[in-house]
Amino acid sequence: MKLAMLPFKLHQDRLFPSDATQRAIARQLYAQVAGLPIISPHGHTDPAWFADNAPFANATELLLVPDHYVFRMLYSQGISLDTLGIPRRDGSRASVDPRAAWRVFAQNFHLFRGTPSYMWLNHVFHDVFGLRIRLEGRTADMYYDHITAALGRPEFRPRALFERFRIEVLATTESPIDSLQHHAAIRASGWSGRVITAYRPDLVIDPEHEQFPSALQTFGEITGEDVYDWRGYLRAHRKRRAFFAENGATSTDHGHPTAATANLSAAEAGKLFDRIVRGKGSTDDAELFRAQMLTEMAAMSLEDGLVMQLHPGCFRNHNRGLFERYGRDRGADLPLRTDYVHALKPLLDRFGNEPNFKLILFTLDESTYSRELAPMAGHYPALYLGPAWWFHDAPEGMWRFREWTLSSAGFYNTVGFNDDTRAFLSIPARHDVARRVDCAFLAKLVAEHRLDEDEAAELAVELAYNLPKRAYKL
Amino acid sequence: MKLAMLPFKLHQDRLFPSDATQRAIARQLYAQVAGLPIISPHGHTDPAWFADNAPFANATELLLVPDHYVFRMLYSQGISLDTLGIPRRDGSRASVDPRAAWRVFAQNFHLFRGTPSYMWLNHVFHDVFGLRIRLEGRTADMYYDHITAALGRPEFRPRALFERFRIEVLATTESPIDSLQHHAAIRASGWSGRVITAYRPDLVIDPEHEQFPSALQTFGEITGEDVYDWRGYLRAHRKRRAFFAENGATSTDHGHPTAATANLSAAEAGKLFDRIVRGKGSTDDAELFRAQMLTEMAAMSLEDGLVMQLHPGCFRNHNRGLFERYGRDRGADLPLRTDYVHALKPLLDRFGNEPNFKLILFTLDESTYSRELAPMAGHYPALYLGPAWWFHDAPEGMWRFREWTLSSAGFYNTVGFNDDTRAFLSIPARHDVARRVDCAFLAKLVAEHRLDEDEAAELAVELAYNLPKRAYKL
Amino acid sequence: MKLAMLPFKLHQDRLFPSDATQRAIARQLYAQVAGLPIISPHGHTDPAWFADNAPFANATELLLVPDHYVFRMLYSQGISLDTLGIPRRDGSRASVDPRAAWRVFAQNFHLFRGTPSYMWLNHVFHDVFGLRIRLEGRTADMYYDHITAALGRPEFRPRALFERFRIEVLATTESPIDSLQHHAAIRASGWSGRVITAYRPDLVIDPEHEQFPSALQTFGEITGEDVYDWRGYLRAHRKRRAFFAENGATSTDHGHPTAATANLSAAEAGKLFDRIVRGKGSTDDAELFRAQMLTEMAAMSLEDGLVMQLHPGCFRNHNRGLFERYGRDRGADLPLRTDYVHALKPLLDRFGNEPNFKLILFTLDESTYSRELAPMAGHYPALYLGPAWWFHDAPEGMWRFREWTLSSAGFYNTVGFNDDTRAFLSIPARHDVARRVDCAFLAKLVAEHRLDEDEAAELAVELAYNLPKRAYKL
Repeated sequence: MKLAMLPFKLHQDRLFPSDATQRAIARQLYAQVAGLPIISPHGHTDPAWFADNAPFANATELLLVPDHYVFRMLYSQGISLDTLGIPRRDGSRASVDPRAAWRVFAQNFHLFRGTPSYMWLNHVFHDVFGLRIRLEGRTADMYYDHITAALGRPEFRPRALFERFRIEVLATTESPIDSLQHHAAIRASGWSGRVITAYRPDLVIDPEHEQFPSALQTFGEITGEDVYDWRGYLRAHRKRRAFFAENGATSTDHGHPTAATANLSAAEAGKLFDRIVRGKGSTDDAELFRAQMLTEMAAMSLEDGLVMQLHPGCFRNHNRGLFERYGRDRGADLPLRTDYVHALKPLLDRFGNEPNFKLILFTLDESTYSRELAPMAGHYPALYLGPAWWFHDAPEGMWRFREWTLSSAGFYNTVGFNDDTRAFLSIPARHDVARRVDCAFLAKLVAEHRLDEDEAAELAVELAYNLPKRAYKL
Repeated sequence: MKLAMLPFKLHQDRLFPSDATQRAIARQLYAQVAGLPIISPHGHTDPAWFADNAPFANATELLLVPDHYVFRMLYSQGISLDTLGIPRRDGSRASVDPRAAWRVFAQNFHLFRGTPSYMWLNHVFHDVFGLRIRLEGRTADMYYDHITAALGRPEFRPRALFERFRIEVLATTESPIDSLQHHAAIRASGWSGRVITAYRPDLVIDPEHEQFPSALQTFGEITGEDVYDWRGYLRAHRKRRAFFAENGATSTDHGHPTAATANLSAAEAGKLFDRIVRGKGSTDDAELFRAQMLTEMAAMSLEDGLVMQLHPGCFRNHNRGLFERYGRDRGADLPLRTDYVHALKPLLDRFGNEPNFKLILFTLDESTYSRELAPMAGHYPALYLGPAWWFHDAPEGMWRFREWTLSSAGFYNTVGFNDDTRAFLSIPARHDVARRVDCAFLAKLVAEHRLDEDEAAELAVELAYNLPKRAYKL
Repeated sequence: MKLAMLPFKLHQDRLFPSDATQRAIARQLYAQVAGLPIISPHGHTDPAWFADNAPFANATELLLVPDHYVFRMLYSQGISLDTLGIPRRDGSRASVDPRAAWRVFAQNFHLFRGTPSYMWLNHVFHDVFGLRIRLEGRTADMYYDHITAALGRPEFRPRALFERFRIEVLATTESPIDSLQHHAAIRASGWSGRVITAYRPDLVIDPEHEQFPSALQTFGEITGEDVYDWRGYLRAHRKRRAFFAENGATSTDHGHPTAATANLSAAEAGKLFDRIVRGKGSTDDAELFRAQMLTEMAAMSLEDGLVMQLHPGCFRNHNRGLFERYGRDRGADLPLRTDYVHALKPLLDRFGNEPNFKLILFTLDESTYSRELAPMAGHYPALYLGPAWWFHDAPEGMWRFREWTLSSAGFYNTVGFNDDTRAFLSIPARHDVARRVDCAFLAKLVAEHRLDEDEAAELAVELAYNLPKRAYKL
């Protein structure tokens, strides 16, 4: 007997508590925020999409190949990256029919049950593409054809989706040596979508990045500064930050292995920089240099008003064999235990009490929420807490974030949601999950008589819309 | 249109689950403990209040200025401590009208939504002062006038409130060089309120405390011992402990940066002490001395029966600029990752199996609950777990404490609630929150058929009343 | 008035949420898994029980004396191990009437309220022995007599219970120098019960184990290899692994203080081994040798297909006085903070991408669930997550395991339940708790519309039955 294909739907009450009291409150709260425009102050979409407005290629290239959340799970269960057509480090790719790769994905879609990818993908299938049959091996081709056909239509071009998604502002992330040509093209095009950049200088700050030497050279060329001289190097940063701000940037972002900061004298910093650029720096020097540069970036933020973001605590490219064959960003990054209390003190000793400086902290180490981050954000005027990040950007993780930061940081020292994604089509899904989880969390507080409904309603709007706008100066 | 001022009330079911089954059980359990007298075995109220029984000054001086939970949150959102009239390190204060400070607080009261301070303060407003309109900017003056007027009436004097609050016993905390004159005055007055002291010797044990040299000198004068000699120093402790016990103390308390203990020979300890008192001690010596002194205090506890408390893992005065201007206890203390398994071994090797020795452990690092503290308390006869402390003394934190310690430590290796507060008026609110959360936790166990109702009822009374009395020998 | 003795029962809905929606779903899911055979791939029962099929002695010897979960809790409340008749290190025992020991246990049974032992024991009393009156001081003798009498009957012999419990396969754990005579006897007996062994080589791998020298000597004698030579030592392992596999083993198990692995050259490893066997090894050498041996064991697993298990992060015999008097396994083992990301890299650099190699990871440090273990298992093909272990094998711990690993590892990188017990009679109770908690967890996902019911039903069977069979190749 051949089984019928299974219908699926997005339940209107998904992620709300099943307790009737709480669900009723959550529904009311959600009704007030469901339709608010999306503020996306931190993410990794490609600005070329919005500059060129070219159609996306097919289901596999759009949804599978670029999403390391997806292929890492498949890989963990023994499916090779070549089977999925993931590009190799040298730019080559196994000769894979995208439809065949999609079939493998579909046959293994059950592996994602309960994960955020499952929710995001189903949301995309349902709401963006109007699919109403569950993805599985038997429906793989139907999905592939349906999605690929849709992508050829005008209403699935990037700008049309941007508008359909009601995105008020979308930040991308570029390195200092990026020309920002796509952002310029977007503005020149007359299209009204607000796509801004963010200054992400890791490439010219981390001496251990394999592209550091070449990036530094380009940094000098593009700015006309002597970037092998400490003062010239700082001037180059100032120039590029100003250029980024002209292109809409309101923030910088820093992805460091640790949260270490330093507060060296100008003379010490200059000597350290000399060792670094002459290739004489030790591993400790590299760490100290990154640490000092966070403090330098903070100093510049005080000057130019860019909000600073710190995303520390990741062991990149942990899988040696995979890195050698497939390169970076292949799902082999792992969280590390992270210290903030000691690490941030040098920076905070200088700028922690500045009311006009904002440093938004993220973590991959949830044990720091109640022990370090919330107590710090609940005291220092400069500190704010970014939302649950990366491995923790799931309903359970979002709930833990609120539950563990509320008592010491409250709601107002947090900054709303970041989707932090390169999966453009999933942006509405991700914001919807965040809004639903926050409404569910608030509903519990109301149902347990810790907040009145009017207070929760106000907070729901703050978390979904106002806090990110204020925090990121949007 | 001018909005009406908003009524507020304390809901009778606050903090109970909204699930009808659990709520009904929680209500029944709570009914049995709501009226029990308050046992407050650890706190920081000022014994002079009860000795002098003078009226409190006004709303700001009573509720805002002394409460670093409150002003740290305001500070984190950019409100200066001078605006609030917080005293500076040199004893001076900005010239601030207390009413103006109160207005700033009232205008920003929404920042506390969801935090324990919000619950405690609303409980005080509602139950102690009978207010029924929500605090906000528009009601600031009404609150200020109402509270300040009430404080002038006899029934708001400290002793009257003590009795109204049904406090059976209240412990304060004093250093060894305190004269305990207020405790003596209370007893001499004939008033029946039981206000006892606790022996908190950090000032004469921590060589890194800025008052250590002067405190040590006073310690010698007050005891008539040569406190610069190791044996004399220990004798001085014994004398003061005995004096504290005469003044009602049943416990000692130790607030150390880490939980490190040591077990040096008398000769080694003597040499270490010599280096310390001659000012020749290193940072490591200071840590080792504190560690050794915990073991010495345990040895004395075995002699005199005082219950020992350890509150480790706090980075005091993290904010350098704030410390320089405003001094200690200004909301800039931060939790640290804390080890107990290795740190306590030297002390436990000596005294861990003593059935007549009690060491009550607290933590600011919740990751130790299930990993270290509960397994330790569920084995060592000497060890007990203090309740969720400081940053974790919130409904969420209390729930985590129970959820993470239950399986390895059970209920009977815990000691009930500590309010640990200098905010006298909030004591009933804090105990009420603890009783409600424990009843809610027990209700879940009953509703999920892990305990019978009679077992939960017995446990509710144990947690609210019997366990702290037994643990602290009250 | 003498109180009536209290009835007790196992509620059919125990451990299910009280929310009506979730409970109904949980019931349906549980109905599908409640009767599935028990897969017990990791445990510590004595194979002699099933070889000899002799009756158990009495209630105390069966349920109290071997169970350190039970006597550690009693000990923590001041009851001496001699009172309970726990054997001493020298093999002697205090002269204790087992009935008297049972009475002490019964009088203190309330100490276990809320703990997993309370559930497991009550399940055994109720379902295995048919008792319907609560255990307490007044019912101690009744219990003792009832249980002891039952144990004399044929249906309470080990093999009869094995069949009654519907155990499909039960793994014990033996050291390489064990003759496996009981497993041979079981097979030779013609009894159909499947009792297999697992290869646990700690004794001949850990140079710091007090039996290491004598075990190594036996290891040489039993294998006919020169185990004081690096190559001979490795050959000896290969031989014994093959012998264990012949006796049904499908896995190895490793209980190390840390998760450290190493990847030395053969020459380096040989030199290290020389230092170790000549007694010249330092503490660091011992750690490095254990680390290297994990990688060697992984290499052999690739050859012979045995699944590898790693149980790291325990400080054994923390209580010095207790160890000196009573020896190992007396409830004085404590969890340690554990690192996996750095520790496992050497092994993973060699074998992490091997689809035919399986390494199942356990932890006593729950802070690693979401930070390290789930992200690792959600990427590396070789890695799987073992269930909540030891101190965390409780409903709360199982729930945390699911809640913290789901988003990054999903369900399919986990391996179902391990009872890990020497308390044979509690095996059905433990599996039942695990099945109930998993069904409750799935019910929440269904009730919040994150899974459809058919998906949850499939997952419930996977978690209870299929995943452990596949993971352990049973």
